[in-house]
Amino acid sequence: MDTHHETQLDKELRELKNKLIHMAAIAEAMIDQTIKELVNRNEQYAPEVSKEEDDLNRLQIEIDEQALTLLATRQPVASDLRAIVAATKINGELERIGDLAINITYNVHTLVQQPPLKPLIDIPRMTELARKMVNDSLQAFMTGDIELARSVILADDEVDALKDQVLRELLTYMMADPRTTERALALILVSRHLERIADHATNIAEDVIYITQGRDVRHPKTPR
Amino acid sequence: MDTHHETQLDKELRELKNKLIHMAAIAEAMIDQTIKELVNRNEQYAPEVSKEEDDLNRLQIEIDEQALTLLATRQPVASDLRAIVAATKINGELERIGDLAINITYNVHTLVQQPPLKPLIDIPRMTELARKMVNDSLQAFMTGDIELARSVILADDEVDALKDQVLRELLTYMMADPRTTERALALILVSRHLERIADHATNIAEDVIYITQGRDVRHPKTPR
Repeated sequence: MDTHHETQLDKELRELKNKLIHMAAIAEAMIDQTIKELVNRNEQYAPEVSKEEDDLNRLQIEIDEQALTLLATRQPVASDLRAIVAATKINGELERIGDLAINITYNVHTLVQQPPLKPLIDIPRMTELARKMVNDSLQAFMTGDIELARSVILADDEVDALKDQVLRELLTYMMADPRTTERALALILVSRHLERIADHATNIAEDVIYITQGRDVRHPKTPR
Repeated sequence: MDTHHETQLDKELRELKNKLIHMAAIAEAMIDQTIKELVNRNEQYAPEVSKEEDDLNRLQIEIDEQALTLLATRQPVASDLRAIVAATKINGELERIGDLAINITYNVHTLVQQPPLKPLIDIPRMTELARKMVNDSLQAFMTGDIELARSVILADDEVDALKDQVLRELLTYMMADPRTTERALALILVSRHLERIADHATNIAEDVIYITQGRDVRHPKTPR
């Protein structure tokens, strides 16, 4: 193998991975900011969150282009090939996490205009879990840590359970007093957005397991 | 270029695309079936929908493996390369559309156990739009029809407007009579799942535009 090309591929792969890490950091910041807005009952981060969404969109395209260039010019195989294809899937997951953070800000906008419905406990807990899942899934991608990827998939059950708990509790509010309906519904939708963020982190973790455990594509078992 | 390889690549690309078409047909059937359950107020398709979800999961993995094998063994470039990478993104979108159809069946399960809340008009309309968007986005991928892809993205605005309309209407039901809350909420969630199905079709359409209009990755404009 040509040593120069190998080094160049390694360098370009590292750049690609660093861009994903950058996307994940932005996505995590957006999750934090939107939930701080909800807890503090203001919309202080609105301009920042909107700029961060633009950054995610731009990075997503850059990663796709860089991955395609790498595939076309370096002919990577085996785990390098899998990592590059995974990068073009993971960038989409991170971009959508940003979209969901934006969705949460719409619900926050509804909520801050009315008195608080109840102290928030489960939703900040869901937020922290979802944020950690995003962080861990990217960490697992960078290090190939299958156990960490599995822990992300397990954490998703906890987020789902919290989502169901939020729904049950807020349903009783709505049924007891229709004046709470709009706020309760906004909080239910926030919990759904957080659940979807956790789903995207789970998708990333599944991709990591698939990449790391994948058979060598140069030697497929099925004849063709 | 080696003519034998070119032909082999074309054949394998056609197989890959046919698998995506197969996935899309299954996803569309699932959307139809779940909404028929909602309208007919029964759960007749439950076993079928569950089997179809398994089929989607299996096809998603097959497409990923086949795409990786193609990338490793045929070194495709330009539009072939883009089509293969797009296939590994689109299979994920279709698999998630199947997941959302499953989510709808959970809400249908809640709804059929109680008397109907209201005649359904907007939700069947959303369903038909979402199903058509899935069909059109795949058609656009197969034919490279940019105009069709753009029409999918435009249709998404219509689905979003219907989603908002469903929310507003059902909010008034819940606020007027708390006994309607559980059913109204289930219908709101169905509309959200349909909106997300439309989002996935929109993602596919955006991928199609990106593939077709992408610069030649063998000749990137940015120096590296």
